[in-house]
Amino acid sequence: MSDATLKAMAERFLSALQHCQLLQMRVAQANADGITLVLPWSPAIVGNPQTGAVHGGALTTLMDTTCGMATLCVLPRFEVCPTLDLRIDYMHPAEAGKAIYGHAQCYRVTRDVIFTRGTAYQDDPAQPICQVVGTFMRLGQQIKGGIRFGNSLKEGGA
Amino acid sequence: MSDATLKAMAERFLSALQHCQLLQMRVAQANADGITLVLPWSPAIVGNPQTGAVHGGALTTLMDTTCGMATLCVLPRFEVCPTLDLRIDYMHPAEAGKAIYGHAQCYRVTRDVIFTRGTAYQDDPAQPICQVVGTFMRLGQQIKGGIRFGNSLKEGGA
Amino acid sequence: MSDATLKAMAERFLSALQHCQLLQMRVAQANADGITLVLPWSPAIVGNPQTGAVHGGALTTLMDTTCGMATLCVLPRFEVCPTLDLRIDYMHPAEAGKAIYGHAQCYRVTRDVIFTRGTAYQDDPAQPICQVVGTFMRLGQQIKGGIRFGNSLKEGGA
Amino acid sequence: MSDATLKAMAERFLSALQHCQLLQMRVAQANADGITLVLPWSPAIVGNPQTGAVHGGALTTLMDTTCGMATLCVLPRFEVCPTLDLRIDYMHPAEAGKAIYGHAQCYRVTRDVIFTRGTAYQDDPAQPICQVVGTFMRLGQQIKGGIRFGNSLKEGGA
Repeated sequence: MSDATLKAMAERFLSALQHCQLLQMRVAQANADGITLVLPWSPAIVGNPQTGAVHGGALTTLMDTTCGMATLCVLPRFEVCPTLDLRIDYMHPAEAGKAIYGHAQCYRVTRDVIFTRGTAYQDDPAQPICQVVGTFMRLGQQIKGGIRFGNSLKEGGA
Repeated sequence: MSDATLKAMAERFLSALQHCQLLQMRVAQANADGITLVLPWSPAIVGNPQTGAVHGGALTTLMDTTCGMATLCVLPRFEVCPTLDLRIDYMHPAEAGKAIYGHAQCYRVTRDVIFTRGTAYQDDPAQPICQVVGTFMRLGQQIKGGIRFGNSLKEGGA
Repeated sequence: MSDATLKAMAERFLSALQHCQLLQMRVAQANADGITLVLPWSPAIVGNPQTGAVHGGALTTLMDTTCGMATLCVLPRFEVCPTLDLRIDYMHPAEAGKAIYGHAQCYRVTRDVIFTRGTAYQDDPAQPICQVVGTFMRLGQQIKGGIRFGNSLKEGGA
Repeated sequence: MSDATLKAMAERFLSALQHCQLLQMRVAQANADGITLVLPWSPAIVGNPQTGAVHGGALTTLMDTTCGMATLCVLPRFEVCPTLDLRIDYMHPAEAGKAIYGHAQCYRVTRDVIFTRGTAYQDDPAQPICQVVGTFMRLGQQIKGGIRFGNSLKEGGA
């Protein structure tokens, strides 16, 4: 799959998640090595109005989604991959007023389960806000509507 | 603090999180032993339109928020407590069409850090959808707007 | 497999781990629902000579081994299953002078990966010292010596 | 504290852990930035005699100990710091016949709790066998024999 095709599929996938749309999340980059999403700064992600500190839930959603979508980078075709487990460790707080990037890649792919890891950062990927490890179940294309949902994604249907 | 006061504070806290409002999350119960939130079934939490399966991000947000708000149950007064780490392990999928409950309690309280654990379930708390462990930083009342945000919560201000 | 056969296999498996032998770990119980190991109190597990507090490494070894051996309970025949990930959350310290029990069971079995969870306790399983979640890779019987190691276990060889 | 003093303290600490002595663990390096331990290859760490694969418990012990001892690097004086939680994610298997290095550093120090992260590797730190995050409780010098155990360490007593 070309990087452009992969990025287009990732954008269609993300656009179907209302929850992520509210947060204005976008795909920044996607290729065989991994995926990067952006969470722009907005009132919707502020957890503490006095300080502008980000609500943990917004960051968690960013990283859950980023790790889950990293599975697109290693699968030949779209498959539904629900989260099996997710661990987030915050290294330092996000700075108010700046977009947050989430990057993730797959480090192990089995017939049923995909293992991913990633980080969130603002200016410098080497100074991560958090590091994340997540595991996702491959349901296959034929299971539970996988193929049809997959097709609609590839063909640009909602 | 009486259970009624604690529940009212929890409701004000939750109402300030736009992110949780979109998901229509509500406080079901709150007392010294822990807190229970409800995530009603709605199109906003569906991750796979074909099957009605819940988007992992919605469950993650429920449990991040439930664990974070469990800190209210053990603190004498409101303090801002951002997430330090969070681990979610999914035991089985949520059933389509049913509300999801998130329950959490604190099992260790230190001067700076609070340790919580919880579960999400639908019909039966003994058959959890996921089990969660989360750690939260106490910033104190005087730090980073803690007191003022705390006061506005206690006095019913937005 | 009968419970007696399963327990005998578990005992042979445990006896091959020098590391666990030093700690005098034994199989307390094994059946289709899970496995329980015992770590007796001994000088080898003390981390702090003044207080008799257990060294975390001993408890971690107990729970890593218990979760790993829980895979024996759900597999038709012995397979080598190395640890993929392990998370331990300590709820309260172990009491000096008392044996520690580790119990674990499998909650998801896929073609490649097995998910387990467990607890360690002393007197009361409902007051766990720690809760643990671990994921293990099935290498299959034919891979990397699995069959032969498996046979030697079943036949009571080394 | 000078690097030499720190390393000497770390060596005395490690020498008191029988469990680690069996595995022949040694301190490779210790300074304000973190600590590196070595687990030499030996029959005691082999989990699968046919392949020479390392028993997960040995690696877990290495990383639990490395993360726990990283607390020595940031504390002005020795304090007993039991493990509160530990997460290990294995990226790829250890190669038979080679020593394994464990490196860890502290990324957050509060009055009660210290947060650490680290990796295990053989030839190349950039290709980690596993990544680890661990949290440790500061018990203080005066609590539960802390001071006396601390003094005996500093003065070279067993």
